[in-house]
Amino acid sequence: MPFDLRLMYVTDDRITEDQTFFEILEQALAGGATLVQLREKTLNTHDFYQRALSCKQACDAYNVPLIINDRADIALAVGAQGLHIGQQDLPYGVARKLLGDQALIGLSVSTLQQAKEAQQLGVDYVGVSPLFATQTKIQDLDPPLGLDGLAQIRKLYTGPIVVIGGVNTQNAAQAMAHGADGIAVVSAISGATDPKKATNELLKQL
Amino acid sequence: MPFDLRLMYVTDDRITEDQTFFEILEQALAGGATLVQLREKTLNTHDFYQRALSCKQACDAYNVPLIINDRADIALAVGAQGLHIGQQDLPYGVARKLLGDQALIGLSVSTLQQAKEAQQLGVDYVGVSPLFATQTKIQDLDPPLGLDGLAQIRKLYTGPIVVIGGVNTQNAAQAMAHGADGIAVVSAISGATDPKKATNELLKQL
Repeated sequence: MPFDLRLMYVTDDRITEDQTFFEILEQALAGGATLVQLREKTLNTHDFYQRALSCKQACDAYNVPLIINDRADIALAVGAQGLHIGQQDLPYGVARKLLGDQALIGLSVSTLQQAKEAQQLGVDYVGVSPLFATQTKIQDLDPPLGLDGLAQIRKLYTGPIVVIGGVNTQNAAQAMAHGADGIAVVSAISGATDPKKATNELLKQL
Repeated sequence: MPFDLRLMYVTDDRITEDQTFFEILEQALAGGATLVQLREKTLNTHDFYQRALSCKQACDAYNVPLIINDRADIALAVGAQGLHIGQQDLPYGVARKLLGDQALIGLSVSTLQQAKEAQQLGVDYVGVSPLFATQTKIQDLDPPLGLDGLAQIRKLYTGPIVVIGGVNTQNAAQAMAHGADGIAVVSAISGATDPKKATNELLKQL
């Protein structure tokens, strides 16, 4: 499926309160987010499923694809457009088999070797992570790749690249200049005083 | 699909070391376990998937069905025969839709109300939990139902019942006399000096 990778809002799983969670999502969508990735690392399956159902409704209203982080069962259960997998999630081939040819499947890469593998696998996009230092994702993080690392990955992987990790209005344009096709953010939207405006301003940098 | 619910070995997710984990599983199968439920609450998806693949191979060798706890994606990915869901997992109808008509889907029930709901849903079996006090599953546990609670559930739910929670060779026969069709155990097998012998002795009580 065709997709616009410019600005992916990755939902903030630190926001456990549903009302706030969905208000920010609504603002991200109204502000122009082109993709939404639902990422939940602590919810039980029932609550993850319920949250995913509501996300799907919200995204559908803006005609924005919803991508589920890690959980192929949740993606299938709510009819999400895609799945984002990390290096510790299902192997890409297994995820593809479960979700079918039409699903959008992205893979996180943190090293040049992983970027090479992503190229061979033929994933729909890679998430280069982390680009810069970030406070959002406190576990499992590799060292930041930086703009030079991004430029090197750009040479190894020919598909769409979205960068994540410490990306904001100050450095988004630089990331694009070093080979990114889009940016993914958590805190730059979820932590903004005005998430809609923040989304809109990020979009202007791309 | 037809299944023999007499003795379900629920794998012990405290055993992180693969060699020990699979040695115990092999012994449980050799000792006569009639069903295996793979339950992992801390592994990442990649490791859960790998463990499930190996479990499937081991179970296939004994022609014993493998049931995956909670994760429909893992069940689909390894071609497991079924899924065991708790009250905080995917809704039964959603799980059924994902896994298809042939899958074996069981539901944990801890109250009379949940037993009534299970009857209405038409699940393949219920896991009455916890029957007795147990040290194995340290989180999310309701108060033990006891033999009287089991007998009450037996009146509300007409399908197959497997009991779990503190079940061992001393009380298994009593559980059967109060309406259980089978028992599910973790520690009674995984914590035994001779898991094969322990499995065999449990089987003799049923």
